[in-house]
Amino acid sequence: MEQDLPPVLSLDIGGTKLAAGVVTGDGRIHGWQVTPTRREEGPRQVLARLFDLGRKAVADAGEPEVAAVGISCGGPLDTATGVLGCPPHLPGWIDVPVGALAAEAFGVPSALENDATAAALGEFRYGAGRGTRTMLYLTVSTGVGGGSVIGGRLHRGAAGNGGELGHVMVRPGGRRCTCGRHGCLEAYASGTAIAERAREALATGRPSSLAAVGNPTAEDVSRAVESGDGLAREIWDETTWALGTAITDLVNVFEPELVVLGGGVTRSGALLLDPVAVAVARDAMPPAARTARIVLAELGAGVCVVGAGAVAHDLLSGKTPGKTPHA
Amino acid sequence: MEQDLPPVLSLDIGGTKLAAGVVTGDGRIHGWQVTPTRREEGPRQVLARLFDLGRKAVADAGEPEVAAVGISCGGPLDTATGVLGCPPHLPGWIDVPVGALAAEAFGVPSALENDATAAALGEFRYGAGRGTRTMLYLTVSTGVGGGSVIGGRLHRGAAGNGGELGHVMVRPGGRRCTCGRHGCLEAYASGTAIAERAREALATGRPSSLAAVGNPTAEDVSRAVESGDGLAREIWDETTWALGTAITDLVNVFEPELVVLGGGVTRSGALLLDPVAVAVARDAMPPAARTARIVLAELGAGVCVVGAGAVAHDLLSGKTPGKTPHA
Repeated sequence: MEQDLPPVLSLDIGGTKLAAGVVTGDGRIHGWQVTPTRREEGPRQVLARLFDLGRKAVADAGEPEVAAVGISCGGPLDTATGVLGCPPHLPGWIDVPVGALAAEAFGVPSALENDATAAALGEFRYGAGRGTRTMLYLTVSTGVGGGSVIGGRLHRGAAGNGGELGHVMVRPGGRRCTCGRHGCLEAYASGTAIAERAREALATGRPSSLAAVGNPTAEDVSRAVESGDGLAREIWDETTWALGTAITDLVNVFEPELVVLGGGVTRSGALLLDPVAVAVARDAMPPAARTARIVLAELGAGVCVVGAGAVAHDLLSGKTPGKTPHA
Repeated sequence: MEQDLPPVLSLDIGGTKLAAGVVTGDGRIHGWQVTPTRREEGPRQVLARLFDLGRKAVADAGEPEVAAVGISCGGPLDTATGVLGCPPHLPGWIDVPVGALAAEAFGVPSALENDATAAALGEFRYGAGRGTRTMLYLTVSTGVGGGSVIGGRLHRGAAGNGGELGHVMVRPGGRRCTCGRHGCLEAYASGTAIAERAREALATGRPSSLAAVGNPTAEDVSRAVESGDGLAREIWDETTWALGTAITDLVNVFEPELVVLGGGVTRSGALLLDPVAVAVARDAMPPAARTARIVLAELGAGVCVVGAGAVAHDLLSGKTPGKTPHA
């Protein structure tokens, strides 16, 4: 059935990269394009380049036309009006009507969606979540975000951001989070937080193979764990503890069939997944713990583009709000 | 529309009390009955008395017949099969097919539901949640439980218990919870936990007006707060801190329009509600915090009976699973 859905154009607005592709009803990306965001150029120029990138994707995909445009971007944003609020990854972009502009540019209806929420729908429909009804998706990346599918439908929440799964408290009074609260999951498990904690530990003069790296990233930390570095192991254990604690909470309150972990930090694979899965199986309430599987995402770097395509398909079937072009 | 729903019988199986009533389409209870559970008699005798209580409710309500039976009980239980697992409040009740037995006893279809989940549906349809689409309900009572309504539908979760909102972590490594984990909301905010912490504080010899009470309850603690007792205030502040922390997490991840607080401990009213609402407004992510209101429940002691009635109505309209009597 999904295979009969028409091709749609997907656009993804990241803090460092813009991406575009045509997504067909089977969830495949055609004519995939990527270019630097150069957000300092401001919304007018960046969006002009984004729409050009979209046109190039349509041309390269060999599709004469697309039926809708789906756009994924970090929030806050308003899915009903298609207006981007003032997302922290795009400083100075204030109340930009991305949805309406895209609808005008391509002459088809458009839907704007929170990137993590779009990714959750992508994994649900075409990735690790296929065949489930209730699924959580967490992206562990520069920040920690996520989305939920409940009873087969994307949950947007009354505030329209679909749930901030990265802002579950794991340590009251702990590290300051980007949201202003102290001790959220994001303040421990994001790639940014892993790198920060490594820097802080090295600054105390403790010996570690990471000292030779200069400014270690989360990836450097995971590599050092694998080569037996003690300091890296401590940072990693705290990371998986934070994820295990927060996901136990989420499993208790949502009782999902599946929790999908995606985002750059999960490229560490079993090193991240295994301790988290063990903690949830041990700590969650027994019926919820027996039911929920914890797995890695399947869609990789294209997840937001595939997800925005799924959002555009939902727009065509009336499941999601959007903007239509003027006649 | 709801008003056209036929009368249904509601049964509630508590650890100390059984209740029954006929619930009409407007959410009113008729022929309300209550009797002690005497759980030590075992399931066969207790259920016989419960069904007699149901027949008395039907007779007293002046309803010639009911179209379905809804039963609320503490879990774990299986809503699909109507089988009660081994609920902690009914020791020795193992795999009792309550749904099938009720369907046979009354000759109509039956639905068994987790009591907190049923209460969430009751408040959603007839209480504080009327007119909302996405609502959380927490009962702060002997334990802390709850349920969620998402997009206008009761969320049961893949494990069928509808979400354990009392088992959000608020203090890692903190007080041991009934679920076996340390530091859950329930371990700080339940009536049982409030009373325990009062006893522990008194045992250290600290002066307090509660020392004269003997074995103070949560209600004694809230009264002592109102009369200016310092020790009671400390316990109360920790209680509202725990609720504020956990509800901030829940508001972040669900983005509800409304959070409804019910259960015995909420009889303390503004003393409980106000500091919790302030904490959530301050600490939740801004879009979610702006959207979510925190209010007290409206249905009082009858909430589970009204909720089980709403579950029975959902059974009749095919929205919920149930057991049918043999022909």
